[in-house]
Amino acid sequence: SDPPAARASCDCPYDSDPERHPGLIFHNNKPCNAELPSELMMDSWLTPNPVWFIRHHHPVPVMDPEDYRLCIEGVGTKAVTLCLEDLKKRFLKREVCATLQCGGNRRSELDQIEKTSGIPWGFGAMSTARWGGVYLREVLQHCAGLSHENVEAFDVKHVIFKGMDGMEASIPIEKALSPYGDVLLAYEMNGEALPSEHGAPVRVIVPGVVGVRNVKWVGRVVASTEEAEGPWQRGLAYKGFSPMVKELQGIDVEKIPSMHELPVQSAIVSPKAGSIIELDDVEVKGFAWSGGGRGIVRVDVSIDEGKTWVTAELTNGKDQDYNRAWAWTFWEASVPVPEELQGKEFTVLCRAVDAAYSTQPERPEPLWNLRGLNCNCWHRVPIRHQE
Amino acid sequence: SDPPAARASCDCPYDSDPERHPGLIFHNNKPCNAELPSELMMDSWLTPNPVWFIRHHHPVPVMDPEDYRLCIEGVGTKAVTLCLEDLKKRFLKREVCATLQCGGNRRSELDQIEKTSGIPWGFGAMSTARWGGVYLREVLQHCAGLSHENVEAFDVKHVIFKGMDGMEASIPIEKALSPYGDVLLAYEMNGEALPSEHGAPVRVIVPGVVGVRNVKWVGRVVASTEEAEGPWQRGLAYKGFSPMVKELQGIDVEKIPSMHELPVQSAIVSPKAGSIIELDDVEVKGFAWSGGGRGIVRVDVSIDEGKTWVTAELTNGKDQDYNRAWAWTFWEASVPVPEELQGKEFTVLCRAVDAAYSTQPERPEPLWNLRGLNCNCWHRVPIRHQE
Ligand SMILES: [Mo]
Ligand SMILES: [Mo]
Repeated sequence: SDPPAARASCDCPYDSDPERHPGLIFHNNKPCNAELPSELMMDSWLTPNPVWFIRHHHPVPVMDPEDYRLCIEGVGTKAVTLCLEDLKKRFLKREVCATLQCGGNRRSELDQIEKTSGIPWGFGAMSTARWGGVYLREVLQHCAGLSHENVEAFDVKHVIFKGMDGMEASIPIEKALSPYGDVLLAYEMNGEALPSEHGAPVRVIVPGVVGVRNVKWVGRVVASTEEAEGPWQRGLAYKGFSPMVKELQGIDVEKIPSMHELPVQSAIVSPKAGSIIELDDVEVKGFAWSGGGRGIVRVDVSIDEGKTWVTAELTNGKDQDYNRAWAWTFWEASVPVPEELQGKEFTVLCRAVDAAYSTQPERPEPLWNLRGLNCNCWHRVPIRHQE
Repeated sequence: SDPPAARASCDCPYDSDPERHPGLIFHNNKPCNAELPSELMMDSWLTPNPVWFIRHHHPVPVMDPEDYRLCIEGVGTKAVTLCLEDLKKRFLKREVCATLQCGGNRRSELDQIEKTSGIPWGFGAMSTARWGGVYLREVLQHCAGLSHENVEAFDVKHVIFKGMDGMEASIPIEKALSPYGDVLLAYEMNGEALPSEHGAPVRVIVPGVVGVRNVKWVGRVVASTEEAEGPWQRGLAYKGFSPMVKELQGIDVEKIPSMHELPVQSAIVSPKAGSIIELDDVEVKGFAWSGGGRGIVRVDVSIDEGKTWVTAELTNGKDQDYNRAWAWTFWEASVPVPEELQGKEFTVLCRAVDAAYSTQPERPEPLWNLRGLNCNCWHRVPIRHQE
C-alpha cells in the first residue's frame, strides 16, 4: 500500500510517529515496540491510553479522519465504502472491554532457555481498554450483504483485515459473524477518540484472540475463501512449533495452523523480583486472562514450589459474561511465610485456571518454541524474607 | 419425575436395564458405569454403539417411543409439547460427530496420589459417535418462540434439561443458541435409532462440553434465568477445587462455577503399560481431544521424560472445522529407541496442544482435586525394551 501523503516528502518514515509516554519500556523505536511497566499495570483495570503497550510493524500512518474510507468487499458481499461518519451514524455504538496480548508476551523467559527470535518481552505486552465502535458482523451482514446463506453459497471461510500501514491478517468467519464474538470496528478507546498510536481512525478489535489479528488503521475488510497472506498469517511469525524445531528448514510452515485464541495466562505484578519482604505474610497481586473469552475460575499462589497453594481472591473483572470474559481479572493473595522460609530466599509463583479448566504449564522448557510464542508457564518471582 | 409405567410393578428398578457388551470394563452395575477398553478404542474413529462407555446415575428408563413427549417451556418461550415424529418431520435433520468425555475420565491416576471421590475411571470414559437429530436452537427459536429479543427481555441465561431418569443439568444460553454451538436433540447414534442405553428416544448432545450436560432420555427443556438445581450443576459433583481442599466444610460450593468445556486431553492407547518392545522404534498411537471445539494442532511423544519429543502424525479427525472440532483426533508416532534405553525400562508419554495453544499439565499432583475431575496431565505408559 502507498505511504500516506503526509509522509511522502519525508526521508524518515518514523519522524511523524506520535510522542510517547517516557514510562514505557521501549524495545524498539523504528517501528515502535514498547511494553507497559509492571508498576503501572494494576493502577487501574482499564489501562490508560498513554501507557498502553505498543506493538507496531511499520511507521504510524498519519491521516485526517475526514479522508478516511473503509472498503468492505470480497466473496459473498456487495462491496461498500464507508467513511467514519457512516460507521458512527448508521450503526449502533457497541462497547467491549477487552485485553489485548501480544503472542510474544513473556518471550524473555523462553530466551533464558535458548534464544528465540523476536522482541524479548517481559509480561507487559498486554493491556486492557473499553473499546467503542460498531460490531463487524452488523456491518458485514446489514450493510455489505454477507448473509449466512452467502457464506455457505460462496464458501466464505475468513475475513481479512488490511491495515493502512501494510499489515494484513485474518480471522475465521465464525469469529467474525458469531453473535457472541463481539468483534468490533473500533473508533474509541477508553472513552476517547482512538489515538493514532492505536489505530486511528478505525482499528479492528478481535476479543480473545492474539494481538496481531487486531489490525490497526484498517482500510479494507475482505471476505475470502482463504486466510490472509503474508508473514503474520500464513508465514512463520505466529506459528507454534515443537521444542525440537530449531530451524525452519524442512518445515512446511503453511501446513501449521495460524494462532488465534491464546491460552490461559497469569503473572505476579507485585512483589517484584528481588524484593525484600519483612512481614509474616507475602502480599501478592497480579492479573490472569485467557483467550476465547474463557473467564478465570481460580488463581493459586505458592511459595514452596507448588507443594502447597493459597487460592487468590479474584477482584476486578471476575464477573464477566460466560465465554465473553474478554478482559483480564485482577487477583490478590496473602501468603503466610512458614517458619522454615523466614529469613530465606524463595520463589513466589502463580497459576490460573480458566473456564475450560485449562491450566498453565509448570515449566518453560516443554513449551519452548522457535518463535518464542505463548509463554504461559507458572510465573515465578524470586524474593527474600528478612526477619 | 415419576418412574416409567413399565417398571411400576417391579421391585428391582435395574432389572429392565439393557443387555451389555461383555467387553466393557464395568465399574458399577446399579447404576451402570462402564468404560471402553483400550483394545477397542481405536478400531474405528466412531465408537460402535455396543462398546460406548456408559455413565448412568439411575436405572435406564424404558419407554415406547410412541409415548414420548418433549416439553419445551420456561421464561421467554411459548410452551410447546412435541412427539418424536414432530422432531423428525418439522425440523431439518442435522448430523454432528462428537466425542463425549466424563468429567472423571482418568480419575484413577489422581487416586494414586490421594483418594478422590467418584468412579476410578481409566482413560476409557470417552467415546465418539455421529449423532443425528435436530438443532436445539432451531427448536427453541422457530418453535418455542425463544428469540434473541426474548432472551434479552426475560434475562434468559441457561437452558435446563430434565432427564426422565431424574437427571437435571443446564448449559449457558450462549452455547444453546450459537449458530456454531451445534447442540442437538439427538435421536440417532451412528446411523441407528438411539439405543435406550444412550438416551432413547431423545437425548441432548452438547458438543465440547463435559458428558454430564448431555442429558439422556430428555423429557423437558426449560429456558431459565438460573442454572439447573441439584448435585450435578450447582452442587459439588462437577466443581473443580484447589489441591488444598481436602473436605467440603467451609467451602461455598455454589460460588464455584460449574464445569462446562473440558481442557485438552490425550492418551496413549498403544503400547499398553507393561509391554515389551523388541524393535528399534516404539510405535505409539493414541487419541487427543479438547473441549469447546478446539481442534488438536499438535501431539508430541517422548520416551525420555520430555527432554526430547517426536511430533506425531495426526490421522482421523485432523480436518475438523475451526472451533467445531467436536470429535477426537487420532495420532501415531514412531519413536526411535536410543542406545542408552535399549534393553531398559522407560516411560512413553504424550501431550497434545489445542487450537488455543492450551497444553496438558506435566504432573498430576498440581491438578489433584477432591472430586477427581479433569485429569489431563501428560499420559504415561511404562514399557520395557528387550534386545
Ligand atoms: Mo504480537
Ligand atoms: Mo461425567
